Amino acid sequence: MSSAADVPAHLVLSRRDLEFLLYEWLDVESLTERKRFSDHSRETFDAVMELSEQIAVKHFAPHNKKADANEPHVGEDGKVVLIPEVEQALTVFNDAGLISGQFDDSLGGMQLPTTVSKASLAWFQAANTGTATYPFLTIGNANLLIEYGSEDLVDAYVRPMLEGRFHGTMCLSEPGAGSSLAYITTKAVEQGDGTYAVTGTKMWISGGEHELGENIVHLVLAKIPGGPAGVKGISLFVVPKTLVNADGSLGERNDVNLVGLNHKMGYRGTTNTLLAFGENGGATGYLVGEPHKGLSYMFKMMNEARIGVGMGATALGYTGYLHSVAYARDRAQGRPVGDKDPAAPQVPIIDHSDVRRMLLAQKSYVEGGLALGLYCSRLVDEQITGEQDAADRAGFLLDVLTPIAKAWPSQWCLEANNLAIQVHGGYGYTRDYNVEQFYRDNRLNPIHEGTNGIQGLDLLGRKVVAQGGRGLQLLVETITETIDAMSGEYADALRAAVDRLVAVTGTLWGQGDAEVALANSSAYLEATGHVVVAWLWLDQLRAIGDKEGAFYDGKRVAARYFFRYELPKTGPQFDLLENLDRTTLDLDTSVL
Amino acid sequence: MSSAADVPAHLVLSRRDLEFLLYEWLDVESLTERKRFSDHSRETFDAVMELSEQIAVKHFAPHNKKADANEPHVGEDGKVVLIPEVEQALTVFNDAGLISGQFDDSLGGMQLPTTVSKASLAWFQAANTGTATYPFLTIGNANLLIEYGSEDLVDAYVRPMLEGRFHGTMCLSEPGAGSSLAYITTKAVEQGDGTYAVTGTKMWISGGEHELGENIVHLVLAKIPGGPAGVKGISLFVVPKTLVNADGSLGERNDVNLVGLNHKMGYRGTTNTLLAFGENGGATGYLVGEPHKGLSYMFKMMNEARIGVGMGATALGYTGYLHSVAYARDRAQGRPVGDKDPAAPQVPIIDHSDVRRMLLAQKSYVEGGLALGLYCSRLVDEQITGEQDAADRAGFLLDVLTPIAKAWPSQWCLEANNLAIQVHGGYGYTRDYNVEQFYRDNRLNPIHEGTNGIQGLDLLGRKVVAQGGRGLQLLVETITETIDAMSGEYADALRAAVDRLVAVTGTLWGQGDAEVALANSSAYLEATGHVVVAWLWLDQLRAIGDKEGAFYDGKRVAARYFFRYELPKTGPQFDLLENLDRTTLDLDTSVL
Repeated sequence: MSSAADVPAHLVLSRRDLEFLLYEWLDVESLTERKRFSDHSRETFDAVMELSEQIAVKHFAPHNKKADANEPHVGEDGKVVLIPEVEQALTVFNDAGLISGQFDDSLGGMQLPTTVSKASLAWFQAANTGTATYPFLTIGNANLLIEYGSEDLVDAYVRPMLEGRFHGTMCLSEPGAGSSLAYITTKAVEQGDGTYAVTGTKMWISGGEHELGENIVHLVLAKIPGGPAGVKGISLFVVPKTLVNADGSLGERNDVNLVGLNHKMGYRGTTNTLLAFGENGGATGYLVGEPHKGLSYMFKMMNEARIGVGMGATALGYTGYLHSVAYARDRAQGRPVGDKDPAAPQVPIIDHSDVRRMLLAQKSYVEGGLALGLYCSRLVDEQITGEQDAADRAGFLLDVLTPIAKAWPSQWCLEANNLAIQVHGGYGYTRDYNVEQFYRDNRLNPIHEGTNGIQGLDLLGRKVVAQGGRGLQLLVETITETIDAMSGEYADALRAAVDRLVAVTGTLWGQGDAEVALANSSAYLEATGHVVVAWLWLDQLRAIGDKEGAFYDGKRVAARYFFRYELPKTGPQFDLLENLDRTTLDLDTSVL
Repeated sequence: MSSAADVPAHLVLSRRDLEFLLYEWLDVESLTERKRFSDHSRETFDAVMELSEQIAVKHFAPHNKKADANEPHVGEDGKVVLIPEVEQALTVFNDAGLISGQFDDSLGGMQLPTTVSKASLAWFQAANTGTATYPFLTIGNANLLIEYGSEDLVDAYVRPMLEGRFHGTMCLSEPGAGSSLAYITTKAVEQGDGTYAVTGTKMWISGGEHELGENIVHLVLAKIPGGPAGVKGISLFVVPKTLVNADGSLGERNDVNLVGLNHKMGYRGTTNTLLAFGENGGATGYLVGEPHKGLSYMFKMMNEARIGVGMGATALGYTGYLHSVAYARDRAQGRPVGDKDPAAPQVPIIDHSDVRRMLLAQKSYVEGGLALGLYCSRLVDEQITGEQDAADRAGFLLDVLTPIAKAWPSQWCLEANNLAIQVHGGYGYTRDYNVEQFYRDNRLNPIHEGTNGIQGLDLLGRKVVAQGGRGLQLLVETITETIDAMSGEYADALRAAVDRLVAVTGTLWGQGDAEVALANSSAYLEATGHVVVAWLWLDQLRAIGDKEGAFYDGKRVAARYFFRYELPKTGPQFDLLENLDRTTLDLDTSVL
């Protein structure tokens, strides 16, 4: 049964699937031939994976439910109170060096391939997404500062973050500017000493306040007065909760204050805050890089974060799937179709075809999502360590895939969680079981880091048309390689779907009106996402070849499910797009 | 804004839409020409609708959030504690006579048409489904006892229920028998005095324990030892929480005890219980009707309950839709496509095409669901008061539509709530707004009163093939009447879909293997549901004709949305069914 707080490893995530994806499909071992990863081997990768599994299962999963039932609150002393297990788990995580897995040797990191690092981190997202979010934000923050920050900022903030002493956030949204960052009003005024006085209010800041570690490093988008209007006038600042002295010791408390905690449907273990910067004159901030380039720097982090959101959604979907398979094997109810003997014993519900449908759907979504997330991570590794041409190509393909890597799992692995509840019946609706929490936690993912609607506009409005349509072309070339290597029902179906994608994209952008082209961008995103995941299923089958065994047969049947039940859903979506449907455009909203 | 606990009427439900459906579409005024409803008029109907709206808005909506945040618990004295607003609201509801709206004059009821009664009750489901569930269970219980119980049982239990003094439950499920009632183990042994000693455990009993009113009347399925195995050996009993003396006064506490409260994802205002009958020797029970006919009696109530579940799902979807329209008009964010001026003010998000899509989808689901629920209620009225032929036909059509009336709204109006959260963005994910609760409350509906999987088996395995296929034939004839009266794009699309439905049903049952026929019954249910709702949209357009005004234009655009975006989804589902896809049947579950 799956009701205990202690969740065994085989209900958290599948090590076998991760190993398949890493070694048999993405061939990460070959990365050890590259200079950056030359200290690594299959053995070191395995060790990281095993360590991650153990720590996630032993230190993260057990308090997942407790953190949900005891959400952060502001204590009498004004400090944010979390359950103690959060800090305990993070200490183990940091002490094991997992916080710095993907970072350079020179920064105390393990210099792991991104693919291996993301696979290892998926254990934590599956075990306890609320607690895992704290180090994940820190990793994203550190990554950005390493790329764009000065050496001083790296020394003062990144090193303590990678030691697990400081935590990081990203402060983009404001109460009046969420999806539309052009309208942020937070100001940063140069103070004559090279620092800035930052004033403004930031909304939805995850990890924005807590007593974990020693300090919180906020990365804050703000406008320097006199700069350009809109997004071109946005700059990026480090604004620490507590100022850091030149010797690295902690100084005074900065002018950053908690206004309130947001109380959410799920994801309750992670504090989410409304923060006031500069209520008492101005919070001290340090400019990152050059003025007015803040949004482009932040997008570096945001693109990583979007893939991270997709991986998080996948991880929650995956653990829900594993829970529901276990439940369906265990729970006896009903008889097979046609068995009219009232004295016959009940059968496990996994014997019922509709339960099988719900399990296969989940499997096809969550393993598809994991393949997508790790494929994108592998592109990051290629971008960083590949030959110039391959690196450029990988980076470009990654750009195209990013909105899908964010939106697809956050839609379909959420649907997986919905199905996991349904498989559990009434039990799944209770908080005695884990699956309802997975759904509630996962429901955030279609919203944050750019709503899925924003991802649709990004894919259709920017990514596929980038460089005169080279974005789509590159995607299609890559998919076609797989199709050409295979044959039969699935390859044929995928080729037809890709042809439609190309034709529809041509129709949309060929008619000359951007508003019409983008009117159904969500349908475009969904359809393209399904085409991409169908391709990744076919490519997994290519890697499997004629290998035998239950694991491979499981892949085969999930692929069959995806091609039979899922890919055909793109037909009506492509029809709608091809017809340049104007229902939403023509709408007189006063009739609603 | 929609964050306040006090929800204005126009965010709860649409009186205008209800009036349209009742008077302009279903012509309930014509029912006043029938004997049973001859005391009624448009004025009395309107008065009931207005009273319902007022009480729902004033007494039910304001504590919806509070009841969610303060779920029932067992106090130190072992009694179940609810927030006091629940009893206060129910007192107003009962005092207004709404508990007995549909019941006979002779029982103190208003003898309202079911259609009007269900429309009036929808206000309460939309305003506060947790509190509304208590009287709804009571109404279902009373309805069953009036039909099958003795006069003594009616006097002792129904009259106090219709006065609002007693509450009712239905006790079907057990921990090991939920979807499969054949396996219940609760026993009822005749005690020599005509009463029975009932022993067993019942699970998921909504309203199973509380201190509301004076007594709780449990309707309990149990087996009399020596009876037939399986469902043919199930009998039905009245088992009151407190025994009732011959003079109607309350006697001793019966042997019915609360084992525990279930703690759910949503629907928290309604207690949901595990009950032990006969822990101390046997709970006194009174047989309803004849032995071994309990399940058929219960199905009378269950069929009503299924339509009620659909209406409840619709009501939650409807209020979420209204909340999200209001939010989308109010919330400014972003600029129109193509407007590159960073100094331009932000526009209301309702101007963005993807937000419009999410609003139109919701509108098409919730108004479609409401039309479906009220159409079925109108069939009930026809069944009760129509001429013999029409009554038979109505009853038969109602049988066919019942699984759809339950499953379709519980799937699509839940999806509406999902979209309502998405329209609200991050705010919708917080408990400061109402929409996340609507989703959590609504998530129960695909599960209870027969999971949607069960509904699929019922529709395809029983209903459409009833009387040699007369079930489907009757549905198709009825839909075709509407198609024949209309013409153009929608009529053509619907005719084609109906043709496919007929062809696919023939293929499924023509191949001779029930297991194969039923392998994809959920796809069949979904596709048929979409065909039915498309028909109800077309039929609403038929009723509208060329009437002018924003309200009618709203109906037209929602119908357009449904025909353009929704009905085409049935194509791949019909394909799957026509191919007799065996993916789920062929599955070797050891590979999962």
